[in-house]
Amino acid sequence: MKRVYNFSAGPSMLPEEVLRKAADEILDYKGCGQSVMEMSHRSSVFQGIIDRAESLLREVMGIPDNYKVLFLQGGASSQFAMIPLNLMVNSHKADYVLTGQWATKSWKEASRYGETRVIASSKDKTFTYIPKLDPKTFTPDADYFYICMNNTIYGTLYHTLPETGKVPLVADISSCICSEPLDVSKFGLLFAGAQKNLAPAGLTIVIVREDLVGHAQEITPTMFNYKTHVDGGSMFNTPPCWTIYICMMVLDWIQNTVGGLGEMQKRNQKKAKLLYDYLDNSKLFRGTVVPEDRSLMNVPFVTDSDELNAKFVKESTEAGFVNLKGHRTVGGMRASIYNAMPYEGVEKLVDFMDKFEKANG
Amino acid sequence: MKRVYNFSAGPSMLPEEVLRKAADEILDYKGCGQSVMEMSHRSSVFQGIIDRAESLLREVMGIPDNYKVLFLQGGASSQFAMIPLNLMVNSHKADYVLTGQWATKSWKEASRYGETRVIASSKDKTFTYIPKLDPKTFTPDADYFYICMNNTIYGTLYHTLPETGKVPLVADISSCICSEPLDVSKFGLLFAGAQKNLAPAGLTIVIVREDLVGHAQEITPTMFNYKTHVDGGSMFNTPPCWTIYICMMVLDWIQNTVGGLGEMQKRNQKKAKLLYDYLDNSKLFRGTVVPEDRSLMNVPFVTDSDELNAKFVKESTEAGFVNLKGHRTVGGMRASIYNAMPYEGVEKLVDFMDKFEKANG
Ligand SMILES: Cc1ncc(COP(=O)(O)O)c(C=O)c1O
Ligand SMILES: Cc1ncc(COP(=O)(O)O)c(C=O)c1O
Ligand SMILES: [Mg+2]
Ligand SMILES: [Mg+2]
Ligand SMILES: [Mg+2]
Ligand SMILES: [Mg+2]
Repeated sequence: MKRVYNFSAGPSMLPEEVLRKAADEILDYKGCGQSVMEMSHRSSVFQGIIDRAESLLREVMGIPDNYKVLFLQGGASSQFAMIPLNLMVNSHKADYVLTGQWATKSWKEASRYGETRVIASSKDKTFTYIPKLDPKTFTPDADYFYICMNNTIYGTLYHTLPETGKVPLVADISSCICSEPLDVSKFGLLFAGAQKNLAPAGLTIVIVREDLVGHAQEITPTMFNYKTHVDGGSMFNTPPCWTIYICMMVLDWIQNTVGGLGEMQKRNQKKAKLLYDYLDNSKLFRGTVVPEDRSLMNVPFVTDSDELNAKFVKESTEAGFVNLKGHRTVGGMRASIYNAMPYEGVEKLVDFMDKFEKANG
Repeated sequence: MKRVYNFSAGPSMLPEEVLRKAADEILDYKGCGQSVMEMSHRSSVFQGIIDRAESLLREVMGIPDNYKVLFLQGGASSQFAMIPLNLMVNSHKADYVLTGQWATKSWKEASRYGETRVIASSKDKTFTYIPKLDPKTFTPDADYFYICMNNTIYGTLYHTLPETGKVPLVADISSCICSEPLDVSKFGLLFAGAQKNLAPAGLTIVIVREDLVGHAQEITPTMFNYKTHVDGGSMFNTPPCWTIYICMMVLDWIQNTVGGLGEMQKRNQKKAKLLYDYLDNSKLFRGTVVPEDRSLMNVPFVTDSDELNAKFVKESTEAGFVNLKGHRTVGGMRASIYNAMPYEGVEKLVDFMDKFEKANG
């Protein structure tokens, strides 16, 4: 058995101990004689799993009681429509900040269901920064204000949140969920495709303030109505049981092995600092993002030569550092160093980069 | 390690050899150093998995080239909206036959997006039969004609298909996909939640004639538009990779271990006959469905006493036959004997029923 360091932007590495536990239990989950892949979602055993996943997420993230937690299918991309369909129901207006491809896709989809306004964009500089926001420019009666908190492709993160007053703040936290503490009470709705920090692909987590549920637009498909899933306890229909089970184990790892989000943050800061410090000192490589908006999770970097970039991707892959090729819209390289990436993986990567620099600098 | 006989209506038993293979490969898929739960969906390794899953499904089901195969999220329930949103686009009319809860839910959802007509219903007798259909009563210019081919809750199956002429026939085959050969060319669209015969929960398979794609209603969310997923090769966004991987292995088992759908059908007929013959001869138990419409997959049965039903469920569970409790709308018992249920499981169940009958008859 061989294991590589997987720097994929998503789906991504999972804690090895979670994978080992899943393998151990795959034919017989805790003596029930069935795999979690086989059991009825209406069984008390599975109810125990989904309840534990929810209570762990509430504990890990400190989710207030007036927020509902939903375990859905459809990917983060489905939220791009579900959010306007469920929330754009009073003024039918919403504000968007465009900080990358995902925010832009979400804005385009919302524009089909109401009146959207782009408050700011960092497209002018290939999304390498988070725009400074002035609350005076926000739409006062907007149904919500939308941000993509961590921009997976471009490697930026909102280190401070926009002050939206009474307007509910909605955030895509797909690539930063559970990477550090977050004050959930500042948001109307949070959502994340779980395939980066929490689970395999096939699960979307939605955390929504309960007063925002139940007012969906008339045209909303039943399965796209948050109320359907709130009322059904995320089991209106068959949920992605296995993915929820892995998510439960990853949350347990965060809470009980790592020690909670405070400790998770320290680990992530230490990993990110190692890589950013190297990049800042390197004469061959440089990060593409302005220092004050850098992501803890996704670190894009380049050399000044397309040939060297390609050579680096090739050689690093051969050395067991996989998925370092940058997104085609940015080029160069990107190291996604999510929760499950050990410090040692970043350390070895930096060593490898250093050797590469000496050989090619 | 203990294994039970799991008669769940879905999620359901998977072939044990598939689970064992999944456990073996869980940390390192074929030497790539990653779990299928961790790998980028844009990697060539995963592209190989989804391509193989599709080609196996095409081979197993004999899917003609002018049909697209989609691997989606959202469950069969999402199709209840996707079908009208994508297909009710010319006359805005569709015909439905109500043979149970799933057909009824689907019809209600479609009625929100166009003009539906109920051509027939078997509600008068708790859905214990498939209504005889007269093509002269069908809407000649309907955009489609909808049936639920196998009714999971009530245990009925269409043994002959309605003659819909030029009107595309749409069928929910969630609980009978790959249980026996099916002439795909007779349908405009087929769909199935994969969690009964093919995979864990979290994957929906859609097989759609290509001329029906690309005409969705204006209000259709991007993720609910078949064209999105046809154009993206089921990877417009992150697909449920692990579930597709298990599906690939189950299809390989059907094709190469069982020997294809002809052999699968023989196995399923043999299992069902054993149970139905027993029920027909039993003085305590009886099947609830008229013989000519019986399902090969779901076998509801009752005694005439609620107490005995409850006693049977309790004692059978203790003996390692789990999930035999009938759906609350039918009561009694239901044995779902999907592809992965071995003959031996049904044999042992019938033995157990026989002993129970002797002790309680
Ligand atoms: C920030 C962000 N939002 C949304 C998505 C889309 O997620 P999904 O593929 O689950 O639809 C991604 C995927 O990488 C992402 O990084
Ligand atoms: C025939 C049929 N259709 C649809 C469904 C709903 O499937 P899902 O839970 O994937 O939405 C089921 C679930 O049991 C079913 O049996
Ligand atoms: Mg981005
Ligand atoms: Mg530098
Ligand atoms: Mg039914
Ligand atoms: Mg009888």
